[in-house]
Formats: sequence, C-alpha cells, structure tokens
Amino acid sequence: MDRYAPLIGGPKITIGMLVYPGMFLQDLVGPLTVFESLMNKEIHLLWKDLEPVGNESPGPAALIPVKPTTTFAQCPEQLDVLFVPGGVPGTFTMMEDPEVLAFLKAKGETARYVTSVCTGSLILGAAGLLKGYKATSYWDTRDVLKELGAIPTRGRIVVDRNRITGGGVTAGIDFGLKLVALLKSRVYAEAVQLYLEYDPQPPFNAGSPEKAQPLARQFLKDMFAGMRANALATAKRATQRLLSGPT
Amino acid sequence: MDRYAPLIGGPKITIGMLVYPGMFLQDLVGPLTVFESLMNKEIHLLWKDLEPVGNESPGPAALIPVKPTTTFAQCPEQLDVLFVPGGVPGTFTMMEDPEVLAFLKAKGETARYVTSVCTGSLILGAAGLLKGYKATSYWDTRDVLKELGAIPTRGRIVVDRNRITGGGVTAGIDFGLKLVALLKSRVYAEAVQLYLEYDPQPPFNAGSPEKAQPLARQFLKDMFAGMRANALATAKRATQRLLSGPT
Repeated sequence: MDRYAPLIGGPKITIGMLVYPGMFLQDLVGPLTVFESLMNKEIHLLWKDLEPVGNESPGPAALIPVKPTTTFAQCPEQLDVLFVPGGVPGTFTMMEDPEVLAFLKAKGETARYVTSVCTGSLILGAAGLLKGYKATSYWDTRDVLKELGAIPTRGRIVVDRNRITGGGVTAGIDFGLKLVALLKSRVYAEAVQLYLEYDPQPPFNAGSPEKAQPLARQFLKDMFAGMRANALATAKRATQRLLSGPT
Repeated sequence: MDRYAPLIGGPKITIGMLVYPGMFLQDLVGPLTVFESLMNKEIHLLWKDLEPVGNESPGPAALIPVKPTTTFAQCPEQLDVLFVPGGVPGTFTMMEDPEVLAFLKAKGETARYVTSVCTGSLILGAAGLLKGYKATSYWDTRDVLKELGAIPTRGRIVVDRNRITGGGVTAGIDFGLKLVALLKSRVYAEAVQLYLEYDPQPPFNAGSPEKAQPLARQFLKDMFAGMRANALATAKRATQRLLSGPT
C-alpha cells in the first residue's frame, strides 16, 4: 500500500558477517536477527571455507556451531556492511591470522560501513581499519584499541564516519537498529524494533562496570586478568606487524 | 577465593531447551547465552531426534540451523528448567504435535521452572501447562493465551508460581537474568549481566505497540493479521483437544 512506501522497496542491502572459531554466538545472532528483518537483503556468513565453526568454548552457546554460507573467495566485491563479531579466545587468533586480516582490509576499503560488536573491534583494528577512528569494544578491552591506533571511546554504539562499533555482546541489538536506521530510515528501524519487541527491562542495573556491585565487578576483573594481558600483548604484536608489513 | 563464595559452587543446574523447525533463533540464543554463563550446568537442546532443525523461514537467522544435543527419550528425568522458545510458523505446528505436547506435559509436571519466551508460551499452553497461570507472550499474540486457559498478563517477564514467561524475542535476555537470580542469587545474576555487558540503550523508543509510531505499528499489525487469526484458531483446536483427550 502507498502509505507503507517508506517501509517497502529500496535497493538491496548486501551484508557480509565474519564468522570464526571461538566467536561469541550472541555477538553474531543479535545483529543477524536485526539484519534478517530487512526485506531486500543478501546476507553472507563469511569464513575461509564452508566447514562449521565452533563458538567460544566452554563459553556461551558453544552448543551451536555455525556453518558459513560463503567463502572469502566467493564474497561479493562490494559490501554495504562488513561486520565482525567478538569472542574470546577467537578474537586473539583472528588478530594474528594473515588471511583473515588481508580479507578484512580489502573488503573494508570499499564497504559502505565497517562494523563490529564486542571484541570484534580489536580484529578490525589489527587489520588496520580503525587507525584514527573513534571506536568502542567490550568494557574490559576498550582501552586496548589505543594500541591499534584507534581512539577508545565510551558508548553503547560509536559512530565515526563509516566505522560503527558496538560495546559488549548484547550491544549488537542496539547496534543493529542504529545501522538499519542509517541504511534505510528511522521509521524502518522502529518497525524492526517493534517486530523484535525490543523494549528492554533488565531486572537488575549491573550492565556496566560503573553500575555493577563491587563483588560482581571485581570477580569479572579477576577472571578477565589473563584475557586483558593477552589482548594487550596481541594488539602490540599486531601493530608491529602493521608497521613493518606491506601496506 | 572465599569472598567469591556467593559466585562459585552450588548444585548443578539441569536445563532442557526445546528446539524445533520454524523457531526464532534469537528466542533460543538470548536465554542460552545467559544459561551458558552458569558455572555448573548441564544444558540440553531437545528434539525428537538429532537432525538439525531449521529456523523460521524466511525470517530471522534462518541461516543457522541448530543441531539438537539430546532426544526426548534421552532427556534427564528431572529438569531444573524446561524452556520453550517462540517463532512463527513453528509455534503453530508444535501446538498440534502430540509427541511434543506429551513430552512437554510430562517434563513440565516435574520441572522446577516451566518457562518460555515469545510465542513459546502458546506451546506451553497447548500442552496444558498454563491453565490458571498468569502468562505473557509476543505482544501481538498475548491475548491468545486466554483461549488456552491462561491469564494473559502484560509484562516483560511474568512470574506466577513456577511458571515464568517472557515477552517477544529480545525479552529472552531479561528473562534469563531473572531466572538466574532465582536459581542462584541476585549477585550471580548481576555478574552475568556485566559479563554480557547488558546495559541496553536502544537508539529509538519503539519496542512496544504503545511506544511505536502509528505507521510502524499498523504496518506490523497488517503484516501479522494472518498470524493472529492462525494463532487463535490453533489455540481453540488445542483446547478442544485438551478437553476431549486423555489427561
């Protein structure tokens, strides 16, 4: 119907989402759920080959392996959206995988939007795609972005020119809606929000280190101590490689 | 360490999550992500057999089939949590599948908590598990619960004795945290909330029919007209079957 013209039609949106062993499933599924709500789209789950990739182990949703739909070689030349999810330990492996980094760099140079959720921004950074850009990451690794030449910035969603990065895990839903508004329109994004009944009402107020009670925060800080050290060391090596390698 | 005693230890939590063809992936993955954060747990993705089940098609996340981990026959006798995700058209098929309904009824009678997200409550209702209980569902099918003997109740999460039902799709994260607080403790749930950085900041305020702008709301109402009619007719048939069948 004519009155729905703002919600129907428009050019096809082509989205490429990296999937990899050791990613965090919700990081992928949150944005994917939003993107799947687009009426005219083509979504590629990208990896080196088409073998299913396991998720973070023994972490969340390790029970559901994801089968890539498209190899790097088959990926469309021009993407509207390049997206990278986070997840430990997979992020660190990806930050030092030359094939992955070269692929992201090539696609990132021509994609309309270069995006991530959670620790995915560390992978974009290791590919040299965030140099001089404001960006965010998981709350406990945000400052590691500095090592990769980015400008660590607080925010559930950080937009700097065509780079859009989201905070940890569940930020992927907020991020997806923001991106849909940019790709389509605000009313379109609002229709998707209602479709997904995204009217969050967390039963507690502990979703950031500032809000969480000290016992919970310190427990995670202690648990993540090794991860942070690993993230920093990996980021330093990645930057050395960017500086010394072919541009 | 001793100070973390409230966050460590405690008996194992056994969780059974129904998976089925035509479910909505985010309905499953939201709660699963929360449950996977439990330290001492056993999670079963339950279906008739171990063949991968496709998701809602052509809807969200149809790209990622889910392989069940456990058949109905292998399911542990006593579950701490029985969980049913939503998704159309799968919900309607499940509401009339005698094998699924008999399984849910049997496990629901002994489970500590009988739970759902989105249209999953219609399946619980068709199994006779919500009779006389307050419950919620996806915003556009909430009132259909009346046909199944439940008391439709507004709320992101509705708790009535040991029945816990969540609203549409994204309510699964709120629901999961609430349930973890009941299963473990509030500080445990808060640690999980911080772990998942669940500090939602939707870019728009359109997550319920009352909040959405009229164009978006009416668009979805029109799009869902057939689904609502189908839900009502299926619920009526399910209730007839409950009344006439063996108890």
